[in-house]
Amino acid sequence: MEHNREVEIDGNSNPIQISRLALDIGGSLIKLVYFSRNSGDDEDPPKDKVGVSSGVNGRLHFAMFETAKINDCLQFISANKLLLGGGFQHQENCTNGMSFIKAVNQEAFTYLNGSKEFVQINHNDLYPYLLVNIGSGVSMIKVDGDGKFERVSGTSVGGGTFWGLGKLLTKCQSFDELLELSHRGDNKAIDTLVGDIYGGMDYSKIGLSSTTIASSFGKATSHCKELEDYKPEDISWSLLRMISNNIGQISYLNALRFGLKRIFFGGFFIRSHSYTMDTIAVAVHFWSKGEAKAMFLRHEGFLGALGAFMSYERHSLDDLVVNQMMPLPVNASLGTDTNYDPLNGDINGTESIQCSVYRA
Amino acid sequence: MEHNREVEIDGNSNPIQISRLALDIGGSLIKLVYFSRNSGDDEDPPKDKVGVSSGVNGRLHFAMFETAKINDCLQFISANKLLLGGGFQHQENCTNGMSFIKAVNQEAFTYLNGSKEFVQINHNDLYPYLLVNIGSGVSMIKVDGDGKFERVSGTSVGGGTFWGLGKLLTKCQSFDELLELSHRGDNKAIDTLVGDIYGGMDYSKIGLSSTTIASSFGKATSHCKELEDYKPEDISWSLLRMISNNIGQISYLNALRFGLKRIFFGGFFIRSHSYTMDTIAVAVHFWSKGEAKAMFLRHEGFLGALGAFMSYERHSLDDLVVNQMMPLPVNASLGTDTNYDPLNGDINGTESIQCSVYRA
Repeated sequence: MEHNREVEIDGNSNPIQISRLALDIGGSLIKLVYFSRNSGDDEDPPKDKVGVSSGVNGRLHFAMFETAKINDCLQFISANKLLLGGGFQHQENCTNGMSFIKAVNQEAFTYLNGSKEFVQINHNDLYPYLLVNIGSGVSMIKVDGDGKFERVSGTSVGGGTFWGLGKLLTKCQSFDELLELSHRGDNKAIDTLVGDIYGGMDYSKIGLSSTTIASSFGKATSHCKELEDYKPEDISWSLLRMISNNIGQISYLNALRFGLKRIFFGGFFIRSHSYTMDTIAVAVHFWSKGEAKAMFLRHEGFLGALGAFMSYERHSLDDLVVNQMMPLPVNASLGTDTNYDPLNGDINGTESIQCSVYRA
Repeated sequence: MEHNREVEIDGNSNPIQISRLALDIGGSLIKLVYFSRNSGDDEDPPKDKVGVSSGVNGRLHFAMFETAKINDCLQFISANKLLLGGGFQHQENCTNGMSFIKAVNQEAFTYLNGSKEFVQINHNDLYPYLLVNIGSGVSMIKVDGDGKFERVSGTSVGGGTFWGLGKLLTKCQSFDELLELSHRGDNKAIDTLVGDIYGGMDYSKIGLSSTTIASSFGKATSHCKELEDYKPEDISWSLLRMISNNIGQISYLNALRFGLKRIFFGGFFIRSHSYTMDTIAVAVHFWSKGEAKAMFLRHEGFLGALGAFMSYERHSLDDLVVNQMMPLPVNASLGTDTNYDPLNGDINGTESIQCSVYRA
């Protein structure tokens, strides 16, 4: 992955001052969130009469590195004179990071049949919810309120499984290349579909259609074919559907268990990838018979880093006021990565948004 | 798979007469159950005063073929002059087949930490339960009583996934060879464990240990290794644990949803394989915090065929009286297959048991 070429720190090319940085070091990726003060701003803004300073204007930046290339990350931190704040309590950071959806317009959205719908969520309407953080593995966290959360479930079948199995099966050299491949894939070459088994029978009674996957990779059991006989793009698509479906199903079952109607999916597996979101949303819709809703987040991959960023110096994200007058996102250099969808406003590469931070 | 060499139809080598046969044709395997009348028995046994005949003595036989080799199966049927009965309503047949556990001693057992414990289940104590049939895919059926059942869930990640992915990754030529490989495997070469991520931290608070799998195949994302650098036995073991864990978890979540304390696992994926049963049992135990119990069946793979067999001519398995004086199982030729455990009394190859069938 190459998301950290050169960061154009400020959209206006003004010199900037970094105030702080938070890191979220995962099994596959290191996520960074850091704030840069605009140079025109005072170092110590005046405090009002209750001792609260006025906002410090600047930009919030998002960047990531592969965990295996941690040296590049350290070099980046050093070259940009970033000061490390941010803690390592990943779960707590993720749930803290969720407050971001209250601070930013057009942060949370639903996705179904290729169409995205932004949902503005009020504080009073947010809890309780299930937060499904899909990194290398998957954590499912029931969140009942600010700082009130519990890890209720998880699965080892996550982003690391997609990338690990995918790498072994396709020889792709990056997660993004593997995702990109899936666009051109067709799972009926490898998966056994319900229609393959039952032929013309009526299986709608039991809620299945002829294209429902009966057995993921079931056709790969064929005696007359080897790995080389399958197209990498078909393998990628089957793998993506298997894993997305599975996460959607287990998430729904856990939401059901605690009576949670809303499931937020975060973490870098999703990467605003439309097929991934579509499969997860369809799985939640299918298993819940339309009762539960899958929600996605534009800053999905940065929940942990955002939470760490704000917990540093005991800030809550309520202190962060994003300048809503600026079009979101303000893209910085996106490199040559084509998997993301900047036109749709997804922030997953190296980007920054204009904001103000208030200090107690 | 080579489970159908030559069937020694009768342990006593007496000439026999086949009365009927039932087939269960799955995505990977065809399962056969057929009854052979002992030659000494009358063709039409005398009826008692309410019109019920006395029992016909004979043997119930179990055999299987790969679905891809259906011609071998048809040849076998023809050579043995078997008469096809048995229907194609797979779910109904499976739940019918479950009655077998009432007819046979030492049919159902629990499995934990390598130790098997038989449970004799009374009719009054049987319902409701969750029946998880693991074939190429997985069906989860809530059974409330004789003939009262509903498919409530399922997953495409089943035996076909294990065998399909395993074949692509290891070049094994049979399901049994792949299973056999897993015995010598170690998943820490390929899976990312909780201990790999968090090091010496205390993660027991969230119910995880250092050997809990954080990401299945997570280590296969490493840049410096290719498929050839991993041992097939490690791949097989990681795959088996991933799939067994996942089935155990989804099954438990569905049992919880309907308040079912007992989960029966059937279908040919299990094949009395100790690691598979152990992983499923541990998953159910782990996720339910010991509240739910995984149960296994000696004739696990033949539920559908058994049900079909008995539904033919409107028999219920209550009409089947297995001769409990005979040691179970009476092995016929097991061929060279070493994955099964005849010493432990598991019936998954070509075998037969002594029984009597009553006709209305």
